[in-house]
Amino acid sequence: MSALSEGLTQIVIPLASLVGIGFALLQWFLVSRVKLLSQDSSNGYKQKLIESDEEEEGINNLEISIKCTEIQHAISVGATSFLFTEYKYLGIFMCVFGAIIFLFLGSVKGFSTKSEPCTYSQGNTCKPALANAFFSTIAFLLGALTSVLSGYLGMKIATYANARTTLEARKGVGKAFITAFRSGAVMGFLLAANGLLVLYLSINLFKLYYGDDWEGLYESITGYGLGGSSMALFGRVGGGIYTKAADVGADLVGKVERNIPEDDPRNPAVIADNVGDNVGDIAGMGSDLFGSYAESSCAALFVASISSFGISHEFTAMSYPLLISSMGIVVCLITTLFATDLFEIKKVSDIEPSLKRQLLISTVLMTAGIAVVSFFALPSEFTLFNFGTEKEVKNWHLFFCVAIGLWAGLIIGYTTEYYTSNAYSPVQDVADACRTGAATNVIFGLALGYKSVIIPIFAIAIAIYVSFSLAAMYGIAVAALGMLSTIATGLAIDAYGPISDNAGGIAEMAGMSHKIRERTDALDAAGNTTAAIGKGFAIGSAALVSLALFGAYVSRAGIKTVDVLTPKAFIGLIVGAMLPYWFSAMTMKSVGSAALKMVEEVRRQFNTIPGLMEGRVKPDYANCVKISTDASLREMIPPGALVMLTPLIVGTLFGVETLAGVLAGALVSGVQVAISASNTGGAWDNAKKYIEAGVSEHAKSLGPKGSECHKAAVIGDTIGDPLKDTSGPSLNILIKLMAVESLVFAPFFAAHGGFLFKFI
Amino acid sequence: MSALSEGLTQIVIPLASLVGIGFALLQWFLVSRVKLLSQDSSNGYKQKLIESDEEEEGINNLEISIKCTEIQHAISVGATSFLFTEYKYLGIFMCVFGAIIFLFLGSVKGFSTKSEPCTYSQGNTCKPALANAFFSTIAFLLGALTSVLSGYLGMKIATYANARTTLEARKGVGKAFITAFRSGAVMGFLLAANGLLVLYLSINLFKLYYGDDWEGLYESITGYGLGGSSMALFGRVGGGIYTKAADVGADLVGKVERNIPEDDPRNPAVIADNVGDNVGDIAGMGSDLFGSYAESSCAALFVASISSFGISHEFTAMSYPLLISSMGIVVCLITTLFATDLFEIKKVSDIEPSLKRQLLISTVLMTAGIAVVSFFALPSEFTLFNFGTEKEVKNWHLFFCVAIGLWAGLIIGYTTEYYTSNAYSPVQDVADACRTGAATNVIFGLALGYKSVIIPIFAIAIAIYVSFSLAAMYGIAVAALGMLSTIATGLAIDAYGPISDNAGGIAEMAGMSHKIRERTDALDAAGNTTAAIGKGFAIGSAALVSLALFGAYVSRAGIKTVDVLTPKAFIGLIVGAMLPYWFSAMTMKSVGSAALKMVEEVRRQFNTIPGLMEGRVKPDYANCVKISTDASLREMIPPGALVMLTPLIVGTLFGVETLAGVLAGALVSGVQVAISASNTGGAWDNAKKYIEAGVSEHAKSLGPKGSECHKAAVIGDTIGDPLKDTSGPSLNILIKLMAVESLVFAPFFAAHGGFLFKFI
Repeated sequence: MSALSEGLTQIVIPLASLVGIGFALLQWFLVSRVKLLSQDSSNGYKQKLIESDEEEEGINNLEISIKCTEIQHAISVGATSFLFTEYKYLGIFMCVFGAIIFLFLGSVKGFSTKSEPCTYSQGNTCKPALANAFFSTIAFLLGALTSVLSGYLGMKIATYANARTTLEARKGVGKAFITAFRSGAVMGFLLAANGLLVLYLSINLFKLYYGDDWEGLYESITGYGLGGSSMALFGRVGGGIYTKAADVGADLVGKVERNIPEDDPRNPAVIADNVGDNVGDIAGMGSDLFGSYAESSCAALFVASISSFGISHEFTAMSYPLLISSMGIVVCLITTLFATDLFEIKKVSDIEPSLKRQLLISTVLMTAGIAVVSFFALPSEFTLFNFGTEKEVKNWHLFFCVAIGLWAGLIIGYTTEYYTSNAYSPVQDVADACRTGAATNVIFGLALGYKSVIIPIFAIAIAIYVSFSLAAMYGIAVAALGMLSTIATGLAIDAYGPISDNAGGIAEMAGMSHKIRERTDALDAAGNTTAAIGKGFAIGSAALVSLALFGAYVSRAGIKTVDVLTPKAFIGLIVGAMLPYWFSAMTMKSVGSAALKMVEEVRRQFNTIPGLMEGRVKPDYANCVKISTDASLREMIPPGALVMLTPLIVGTLFGVETLAGVLAGALVSGVQVAISASNTGGAWDNAKKYIEAGVSEHAKSLGPKGSECHKAAVIGDTIGDPLKDTSGPSLNILIKLMAVESLVFAPFFAAHGGFLFKFI
Repeated sequence: MSALSEGLTQIVIPLASLVGIGFALLQWFLVSRVKLLSQDSSNGYKQKLIESDEEEEGINNLEISIKCTEIQHAISVGATSFLFTEYKYLGIFMCVFGAIIFLFLGSVKGFSTKSEPCTYSQGNTCKPALANAFFSTIAFLLGALTSVLSGYLGMKIATYANARTTLEARKGVGKAFITAFRSGAVMGFLLAANGLLVLYLSINLFKLYYGDDWEGLYESITGYGLGGSSMALFGRVGGGIYTKAADVGADLVGKVERNIPEDDPRNPAVIADNVGDNVGDIAGMGSDLFGSYAESSCAALFVASISSFGISHEFTAMSYPLLISSMGIVVCLITTLFATDLFEIKKVSDIEPSLKRQLLISTVLMTAGIAVVSFFALPSEFTLFNFGTEKEVKNWHLFFCVAIGLWAGLIIGYTTEYYTSNAYSPVQDVADACRTGAATNVIFGLALGYKSVIIPIFAIAIAIYVSFSLAAMYGIAVAALGMLSTIATGLAIDAYGPISDNAGGIAEMAGMSHKIRERTDALDAAGNTTAAIGKGFAIGSAALVSLALFGAYVSRAGIKTVDVLTPKAFIGLIVGAMLPYWFSAMTMKSVGSAALKMVEEVRRQFNTIPGLMEGRVKPDYANCVKISTDASLREMIPPGALVMLTPLIVGTLFGVETLAGVLAGALVSGVQVAISASNTGGAWDNAKKYIEAGVSEHAKSLGPKGSECHKAAVIGDTIGDPLKDTSGPSLNILIKLMAVESLVFAPFFAAHGGFLFKFI
């Protein structure tokens, strides 16, 4: 038996959640102490000023503060209004898809309300399939709502913090960094804690009905993952199209044609661009990682429920995944203090190391944390389900599974950093290729993205092999959970990026001095790298999660092997491997078309509004916001439909084996496309920033802004935008979502699927 | 028993080969009647002139003929010298790798010379493993030599025909077309017939030793496929790097910086560029398709040898794959007459339909041909080996298998045409995206490539499902053979492209009139599409071939299932899916680096040679040729090593299951990358040509040459170069070669592999 009693488990999990939420609120409070308009703040910074302000003009100017506040308000209003419009559509989707879940799962046993004999817990009776259908639907709705909440809260804090970061940048890079980072932490902790709390409460509430039928209980809970991920899909795709249509459109006319700086207030698309950062990179990313977290927990819980933990009703051991997440919150809390209180950022070059240190500290501390949880929460020996057979596992085996996932995440993070930071040779080579124009820049950038896949894939492969060998599919699920256990820190450093990006935009729009802009640019460059790292984590964990879900699906569908030597599985494999391409084609084309429309509108405004270029008249920001909004809402439907319908169609028409092939194919192919797309885009962006910043002799020889090299770099950056912020990161949702959807619908497919093959 | 007797089979196959060779020589003779320098030719064309030559200057000029001859000579010398240098290195490789094959296979039974009991033909004794090692090595060498010969002969006829095509263009587009097409046919028929003849002779010679041991005989013959494909790999990669380094380098300085036309004789890299077309697109492509042909035959023969055909020694039925190829030669011969004699090309717009008609005619005729062969060569019912079990198959089942492969090829060809020809909306949309600059052009182009994967993958999936369901792995092998059965026609229309490209280059360099250049450009634009179609075939057939080889490998390695639910297979799958990216990163980076060197050299010459830009002094062509040669020979080694060593390392260290996973992963992922890369590149090239040609109102609004749109299109074209001619087409060799290598080494891996896992 576990050393930790059931009673204590029931206290520890909600307590950790509440601590996380409390910590997030504390950070929010600290951010809120940066006043936007009061006279206090302008007194305050004078005393704390760590860099000279002699050469800066208007630093003490109330006008600037007012401008910043106005811009922040405009961004916040735009983002809120977009999210509400998006959520209206998603609300309809939730109802429709909830009904589909209920109908499909209810029909498995013909909507019978009779109890059934259990599948795994032999000799016992379990609740009727109809109850599972009902509770799966409820779990789906809960997951969807939590996902939406995660995205929304993230957006709120980000649009609260952006202008504050700009204003703090007047006092120095360190102050600005702290503000941006604390705001990221708010999002990270809120999301991790909320996710855990809702899941915990759902399990306990469902238990009131299910009682001792843990099979049914945890089967229904998988709906939570499906809800989380399906919202994430639309959030990522919709937000991604929104932000990149605006970004590409703004850059193509502003930077390339009109030769005005990025984020110049004269550019009509500039507000849309800044809104986009918040709805795409913040809200989308939040929903995405929440989805991964929810799914890996659900996959682990499901596998555990049909293993000895579930059958002998060991609640503490069952809750191992939740306890790992609880420990994660505590570890991340300590880790955050290192960035906010123990070390101080004094100069620009401190930023990246500080963020990297966060990753390392959280990983080292969490390794100890996992050991503690594994020792106290698990019996020293137990049996796990392994596709029809049973596997004897020891508690330290599970420690290794979680830890290898965690460390694989760190390796993926560091590899991503190496390939996307302009401190290292890969990005510098790409920048150097700009000498011979945009074409060689693109060729080198694509090659870099392809190459950056190698190490992450080996890391994932080793993590899979070790965790699978030690604890079968449960091992994979907890390895995924290990990679996500430090999600609060991961999200903090990730959300920090778009906040800094926005801060830079606000500085430019408010007409603040060159020096302030340089500081926010430095924050932003580090943010590009952390965003790429965040995407690396998201993809790596998605690979493990979807494999775990795949395993759970296979178990639930009652398949014993997925043999690629059978034609049913093989055609699934090759078609599945094609899906990421189809999906990417859709999303990239969407960004392209929306960007073309944006370009036309921006050009139209420049050409028809007199005095706009001279800065005498304000552009019509609202029209650009509308173009992005309309485009993203319209264009997110086809790729969304592709992902949501594929499992349903394949499962119903071709059956469970072909669907298994599709899942495996999409997984192994999608991971590569996603990693290479994210890293290529990140590298191009930072190659451009490398030329712009001109910190080394080499960089100076390529610059300055406006040189032929720089123009070539801007083209690369623009191409990279949809790759890194739309198609790439959406792909990890594709692979996870198809897997979790298959898992939820598995009983239906197993009962009624393979329609077409039955006829032939 | 088969209706066709063994004796007749022994006559029909060599006869068909000889007919093919004879037909190729006839075409060569017809091409040779276009005289380069004699007075006859200048008399001749006057009478046959179908278009007015009033406005053309210098058309009758002997000087022009002399210039063309000189340029042709320079290209031919460059290509021959490169191929000889390349073959010198490949010769060393062949010896080393031949020794590896002998040692690895010989060690399976410890170099024992004792006969062994047969594996499948129970109760009989088979030849010792050492003999198999020896004959596999011989087959490997024969395959390698035939492959080299195929590439070399193709290059010879292409460099013989290019100037002749230019000169014929003076008489009209129809004459030029016929010359280019006939030359392509020479290559197509020589390759198809040689490949068949050498294989046929090898089987009969090996039989002198093997006698009734057909298991050993056809096991050894698989070395033929390995030899063919390994040469193809280096040919494709080396040739691809050569041609694209020169092309990209020439374009970046010439077209973009100096604003001189493509193929301008003042450009120092122009000869290297034209040599590249011959060594890359011609010799490389020839080796590649020969490899596919050899491998699909070997895979089919191997599977048949362990089925009832082999065990009951039915030679005619055994030779079914060879008979299909024999029929293919006859069908293609008839098909060629449609293009050369029955229809006439009168205007530019006739070219593409004529080439498309070739595909359709050959497919329709071949369908009947397959029916005939299936009826006469096969017993009406027989049993096939299906991973340990046996499968009852009827002769009309095999008809369907071959036919579905053939028709899937046609669908792939037509889809490719749709996505890469500028007659349809996809390429026109890409051209339109140039309005907003290079970035949107690239985004739309990438999206087009991703989208173009969908239909081919469904075609391949259906072909796999049907042929596998009807006749297990043998069905897949003959489906691949079906797709390749019209290889002579496929290669003819494919080789036609680079010949036309060269012809255009020669016209430009010889200073011929604008009108001639327009004609060769029209031939070339159609050639871009046919090249893409050819690549589509190459990739589609490679997918089927490698699946067949994969099946043969699995049989030979004695694996019963390849279950993705086992960690060994799954990590193979995900790492295998990564290999195409690794490989592409290497080859694209190689092209990029070599192009940078070329750019520097071309710039240097323009800057330091006085009078070069004015055309008074000739550039130093040889230096550029040397840069391309050195770069390609040096840079082909790492990607070559990746492909050749992966199966050896994985098989030896991780064993047969992981290797099976790697093969499946590389297959399902590589196909997507290859198709999308080829089509993206083809589309960009033709989007540029669309703007240049300006035949529609829309196209005119984007042009003319030198406009901002056109510049954006040139950037896309340059990016596409390494994608469509280096990394994309090399990938199909990657997937085939790893599969055939695994097949050849399977006995070794089964006996001694999995070294690492044994330790853990």
